[in-house]
Amino acid sequence: MDWVYFEDIELHQKEQLGEYTVDKEEAIELSRKWDPQPFHTDEELAKSFPSGGIIAPAIYTIGIVNRLAVQGDSVVAAMAGFGWDEVRFPTPVYPDDRISILAECVEKRESNSRHDAGIVCSLIEVKNQRSELRLSFKTTILVEERPH
Amino acid sequence: MDWVYFEDIELHQKEQLGEYTVDKEEAIELSRKWDPQPFHTDEELAKSFPSGGIIAPAIYTIGIVNRLAVQGDSVVAAMAGFGWDEVRFPTPVYPDDRISILAECVEKRESNSRHDAGIVCSLIEVKNQRSELRLSFKTTILVEERPH
Repeated sequence: MDWVYFEDIELHQKEQLGEYTVDKEEAIELSRKWDPQPFHTDEELAKSFPSGGIIAPAIYTIGIVNRLAVQGDSVVAAMAGFGWDEVRFPTPVYPDDRISILAECVEKRESNSRHDAGIVCSLIEVKNQRSELRLSFKTTILVEERPH
Repeated sequence: MDWVYFEDIELHQKEQLGEYTVDKEEAIELSRKWDPQPFHTDEELAKSFPSGGIIAPAIYTIGIVNRLAVQGDSVVAAMAGFGWDEVRFPTPVYPDDRISILAECVEKRESNSRHDAGIVCSLIEVKNQRSELRLSFKTTILVEERPH
């Protein structure tokens, strides 16, 4: 596994983080504890909601993004996270959806407070097997510079 | 438990969602699966990161917000979520922090597409026991109108 340092990241560089099949039991288990809304936890009740059935909670889909981001051959040397912007759920993520994740660096700048790191903002797009956008957000992180 | 419908929510109305003590084992368990960064999962490695120790991942803190939001005496009749804005982690959430959560309705409007629901945007603020802001975000949801 190779570390990707601040200098290695190019503006508008795109990277496929991989694919993942949404697992109903996994999504329900996470939801029962951390997002116990009926449309995430109860297959019968979920039918009466706009989603028409059980859907994955945002923290599950973001969790898949997090997991795939550190499982690749090259992993960004993240030191901390500052926040997320424009987190959108345009259409729900359903069980058995095969999602793919694309990351694009949309901003990078030096840190004002640290000489060993820079700030990178990436746009994350999660699409399903029909290339429909299911979740998108911008994440801003502190990335280590290449050690001298 | 009472449902809070769209008509019941007033602009700039604030509500305490409750308090929760951040549990290190719970945060690590969630992180191992859904946010496996060393500063979330490894107590020794975490010491060399800006946080100086293990910190809770954002999805755990947001999970606590979700859980407290549905455990109260009055629960918003949420039908779906549209997204989050300005999700900020100004300072980390550490194990054993006692966090309290405040929700304020910052926008409400009728839905263009549904006659049985409206759209509510709430600002969520998570503070620790010293009233330091640890996480904030705006969440926009579809809320059921009171059934006739």
